[in-house]
Amino acid sequence: MYAIGVDLGGTNLRVAAVGSDGTVLDRVQTSVVPQREVVVREMCSAVRAITLRLKASGALTGIGVGVPGIIDLQSGMLYASPNLPGWEHYPVRQEIERQLNTTVILENDANAAALGEKWLGAGRHVDDMCMITLGTGVGGGLILGGKIWHGAIGMAGELGHIMVEPEGHPCGCGSRGCAEQYASATAIRRMAQEAIAAGQAPGLARAAQTNKDFDSQTVYDLAMQGDGPARQIFRKAGWALGVMLAGLINTLNLPVMVIGGGASAGWEAFAPAMMEAVTFRSYVYKTTAAAPGEIAGPRNTTILRATLGSDAGLIGAARLPLSS
Amino acid sequence: MYAIGVDLGGTNLRVAAVGSDGTVLDRVQTSVVPQREVVVREMCSAVRAITLRLKASGALTGIGVGVPGIIDLQSGMLYASPNLPGWEHYPVRQEIERQLNTTVILENDANAAALGEKWLGAGRHVDDMCMITLGTGVGGGLILGGKIWHGAIGMAGELGHIMVEPEGHPCGCGSRGCAEQYASATAIRRMAQEAIAAGQAPGLARAAQTNKDFDSQTVYDLAMQGDGPARQIFRKAGWALGVMLAGLINTLNLPVMVIGGGASAGWEAFAPAMMEAVTFRSYVYKTTAAAPGEIAGPRNTTILRATLGSDAGLIGAARLPLSS
Repeated sequence: MYAIGVDLGGTNLRVAAVGSDGTVLDRVQTSVVPQREVVVREMCSAVRAITLRLKASGALTGIGVGVPGIIDLQSGMLYASPNLPGWEHYPVRQEIERQLNTTVILENDANAAALGEKWLGAGRHVDDMCMITLGTGVGGGLILGGKIWHGAIGMAGELGHIMVEPEGHPCGCGSRGCAEQYASATAIRRMAQEAIAAGQAPGLARAAQTNKDFDSQTVYDLAMQGDGPARQIFRKAGWALGVMLAGLINTLNLPVMVIGGGASAGWEAFAPAMMEAVTFRSYVYKTTAAAPGEIAGPRNTTILRATLGSDAGLIGAARLPLSS
Repeated sequence: MYAIGVDLGGTNLRVAAVGSDGTVLDRVQTSVVPQREVVVREMCSAVRAITLRLKASGALTGIGVGVPGIIDLQSGMLYASPNLPGWEHYPVRQEIERQLNTTVILENDANAAALGEKWLGAGRHVDDMCMITLGTGVGGGLILGGKIWHGAIGMAGELGHIMVEPEGHPCGCGSRGCAEQYASATAIRRMAQEAIAAGQAPGLARAAQTNKDFDSQTVYDLAMQGDGPARQIFRKAGWALGVMLAGLINTLNLPVMVIGGGASAGWEAFAPAMMEAVTFRSYVYKTTAAAPGEIAGPRNTTILRATLGSDAGLIGAARLPLSS
């Protein structure tokens, strides 16, 4: 028995067959072209190719698809999809189901990643957790009682849009000072460019001149070499994450919170400021720390790095039909 | 069949018998004295007196007690109780159970109030909701799937300690800029005193001189009469509440959020700024508002005033044994 998971990103389309024990049995990866019809056709071809190759491996339980955007759970359409321009209001689930002649479960990519980490990753020992995905933006997924928490209309888990700075940087969502504007890879590059423009970051300025691919990784490398402005940028990112996490702790008192996504590679640079903000801003952390030994069981929320890397969303997508 | 609910506040002790249909069958109220042993004894006498009077009304299902503080659910002790000095680490549940010779369910008062509003109040039509209680502090309670969400160690729902101003007013919890520091009755009075001290609020200054009981109600009355500084204070309170609510919407996408507690009487003065902040800071509000008619069912979180008044906690406490 196996399921197929699809991770449809802004750049790559990945399809994998995953056994009920979590083993990846087969996988296919292609790049995403601008024409959505072509992408869906390639996705369906990949699914067909895999099921053909796995004919001897037992029954296909179902297909789960993770997409970057807000999904109308009822219609199976993308309501907003900044990283997949042109996919809004396209009946993507219906179209895949028509071509494959089977039912498909559509899920937000950050929710799928959270489910993946819950199933086989950093959250595998708990039933309640959240995952923060640091990438181009800051995504979030909540798992409560072992299941994705969708909320009233499927829009829960938009954790990157929690405010951390009232008068902060404008966000694509229409608000300002969202956590995403400080803790995403995009935000780290932007803050570096701001520091360069202000003439306050000679190390970053040199790196930007010599490095065509100047990005959050470059800022991270400099921070780890001790460059002050680069370190400051990661401190700000960690602070923003910590404020967001502290609010979640005060709200849900989850046992585990997982940080993943590409920009979580900067952990060494942002984690100290993040933990400082979590401790300072969270009532629970301070209350429980005040009288050690008083409360039985796990004392505090544990903040962990994700363990599945870029496979979290793919594996979580495959988990959707296996767990439903 | 009925249950007994107890609402142990910093000032009043209230005990009521509530039928399984929500009817209040009997009630007793006394004031809270500093000696915790005396309070517990009075509470137990009241329970005994009520059960005696209701002998003909069927079986007593159980007793629920709402207390202002953080409860260690396992031991039944108060972990922190700023409004009940001296009650920390006192085995309150054990003591009540010993005197009454029956089991008792202990619950945080804000959680009990949320359960009350879910059962018979503003949240009665939904299974998922939260309630914000505006009083001396800002309390919170989360109801998910019809039940109080306690989190890993019973500390969920500390919504008043969600940060809204990074460098804001210091909070008793050890952080600064918590929502409680702007939206509680205490905060409204403090902001009025700050405005008076700054010489910027002649109307408030006059009211403070002539009114011995200068409090949030006085500020509210002035705000409703059009006094600029008083209006500004309620705008700030509404803004803080709105930021907090928007974060909760982005996180949980609940269908209903309820505002109650004594200071919610200021609704007319703070609600406009609150709704403005909710709309501006919440991704969901803007996304769903952008394309009307696209998503079926209830579009947005509805923010409602509580309907049970000061009985919410009492009724919710009685609901604890009825629903467990």
